[in-house]
Amino acid sequence: MTDRIYNFSAGPAALPEEVIRKAQDALWSLGGSGVGVMEHSHRGKEYSAVHERAEALCRELAGIPDDYDVLFLQGGASTQFFMVPMSFLAPEATADYLVTGSWSKKALAEAKRFGKPHVAASSEDENFSYIPAADAIRWSERPVYAHFTSNNTIFGTQWRSEPTPPAGVPLVCDASSDIFSRPIDIAKYGIVYAGAQKNLGPSGVTLVIIRKDLVERASSELPTMLQYRTHAAARSLYNTPPTFGIYVMAEVFEWIKAQGGLAGIEKRNQAKAQIIYDQLDRSSFFRGTARPDSRSLMNICFRAPSEELEAKFIAEAKERRLSGLKGHRSVGGMRASVYNAFPQSGCEALVELMREFEKKSG
Amino acid sequence: MTDRIYNFSAGPAALPEEVIRKAQDALWSLGGSGVGVMEHSHRGKEYSAVHERAEALCRELAGIPDDYDVLFLQGGASTQFFMVPMSFLAPEATADYLVTGSWSKKALAEAKRFGKPHVAASSEDENFSYIPAADAIRWSERPVYAHFTSNNTIFGTQWRSEPTPPAGVPLVCDASSDIFSRPIDIAKYGIVYAGAQKNLGPSGVTLVIIRKDLVERASSELPTMLQYRTHAAARSLYNTPPTFGIYVMAEVFEWIKAQGGLAGIEKRNQAKAQIIYDQLDRSSFFRGTARPDSRSLMNICFRAPSEELEAKFIAEAKERRLSGLKGHRSVGGMRASVYNAFPQSGCEALVELMREFEKKSG
Repeated sequence: MTDRIYNFSAGPAALPEEVIRKAQDALWSLGGSGVGVMEHSHRGKEYSAVHERAEALCRELAGIPDDYDVLFLQGGASTQFFMVPMSFLAPEATADYLVTGSWSKKALAEAKRFGKPHVAASSEDENFSYIPAADAIRWSERPVYAHFTSNNTIFGTQWRSEPTPPAGVPLVCDASSDIFSRPIDIAKYGIVYAGAQKNLGPSGVTLVIIRKDLVERASSELPTMLQYRTHAAARSLYNTPPTFGIYVMAEVFEWIKAQGGLAGIEKRNQAKAQIIYDQLDRSSFFRGTARPDSRSLMNICFRAPSEELEAKFIAEAKERRLSGLKGHRSVGGMRASVYNAFPQSGCEALVELMREFEKKSG
Repeated sequence: MTDRIYNFSAGPAALPEEVIRKAQDALWSLGGSGVGVMEHSHRGKEYSAVHERAEALCRELAGIPDDYDVLFLQGGASTQFFMVPMSFLAPEATADYLVTGSWSKKALAEAKRFGKPHVAASSEDENFSYIPAADAIRWSERPVYAHFTSNNTIFGTQWRSEPTPPAGVPLVCDASSDIFSRPIDIAKYGIVYAGAQKNLGPSGVTLVIIRKDLVERASSELPTMLQYRTHAAARSLYNTPPTFGIYVMAEVFEWIKAQGGLAGIEKRNQAKAQIIYDQLDRSSFFRGTARPDSRSLMNICFRAPSEELEAKFIAEAKERRLSGLKGHRSVGGMRASVYNAFPQSGCEALVELMREFEKKSG
């Protein structure tokens, strides 16, 4: 028995309860230091140990090669949307964008302020319900980088594996909503960035994994805080970092490791999503909105026969202590976000409700 | 009896214990919602209530006029160092900077990337040990704004009251290390910004109070996230804000209110600092480094006769559970940071040690 409910929020989202318990203790006194984790100097030895542990665990979990920097920044993915083109895209230069949802479009819009981005593929023709096939991607001649969004929170689609840009073109990925939900081969990427608030921790920390040659190549004419080299050289301690968020992230990394690392977490995530997708496939009442080959393991979007029934379903779910199931306001319907820390029992509880609701309403 | 120690850290710094206790509960379940404060959607009603409460309390405490926006941003004061000139300073335009320490210098350096800032006054000639007098300030002809740092964390100096720029010139203040430590007449300012991690909450939130006409006047050619208007129009919810930090800030605002508001907190702060300055004035062993008329109520910097004795003093303090007393690496010596939440009993404990140490070493 617990006083906590099933939280299907798309982000900020459910965190592991073990991590929350540790964070409660650390708020009062970090590791018996007599000073809470929020109150420690970011230059002191107690916080330094946290900071180093966060980086080391991150590197270990994803097998990040030595020629990549691991940065803990602020401002969310929305800040990376402009920091990437501001750093690399000259006014007449091109970068390729794969547009698979609202967030890709926002990233593209910021790139247009700096250069001439090219849309190499888009799934907007079918309301972003699918991920473009490899042979539908039209790369430009000489893009300075290729940008994609690995998981589309709003539309519930996810790339099965990363696209392959032309040789020598750095691949840039907004992985905010599926970072560390499965193994990732960092060597295939130039930059991976992710807001923490879905799979890694609280909002307010952005994880940026960036190849060192790109750190060096980026413009050095920018404000100090907007240069990746500032943060790389200072190990994310140029200014005061969001220390509490990085602490929680370190604990989440420990928790992922205890689940069998990224391979273990992927199995859990597959099993969890399968429970709900199986029910959608069995149902003639509910229907999933993403094309089956493009389905996300993180965000499962589905509709009922009418908006009225959807509102009723969401209300009944709330009564059963299943919260956050309302779809994004731009698409409607329902969305079950089942990130790393969301428990399998919550997926089972949702399916049970779906069955009962269909029986009486269908 | 408590397992917590006296934390003189310059920032991140001590927070009120009542606030920490509340935050521990909220991590698990915010207001009985069954979902922790880190895990709530920033668009849901539970977090919205927190967000609105933070803004309302902030406005109430400082009596912020209606023609000002209150923003909760990310990136710290270091981000404001460039956002201000990027927004307002054209290449041939001038802004006046009052240079009273390392942070003012960093703000000035970022302004040089955008326009032609003018140093209207500086106390660098005496290692930033004082605040320039009003008649020593040489304003330029037509500055687009005037920038100053209200409290200098590293050198332990503080403006008694804000400087008065020429009529019509917006005053911009980095108030990171003394925000809400005393009453402030916001109407005298164009912009006040402050990293939260000294007087207001954990690191990772920046409070920006900005007059609405400046929000409108700022460049609209900038990346979306770097425009104040983006955040003003969306009430700091354009993208996912640092929700936990804003929650803690709301609780700190409540706590300040319970201490009698800004007037009450000022009295506390005066009494606390006085305890230590009185001891420095009595001592022939320890000496304060800031000129008496420029002394900070937040950061009290002092030296002993030798570096060896200073190291010994800091070590003995640690044994007595007084931590964080080492001065900034750029100036050496000792620094006692006694922000809003630091208790008076800690100042008394420090003075007791100073007396004993002087007696046996002096």
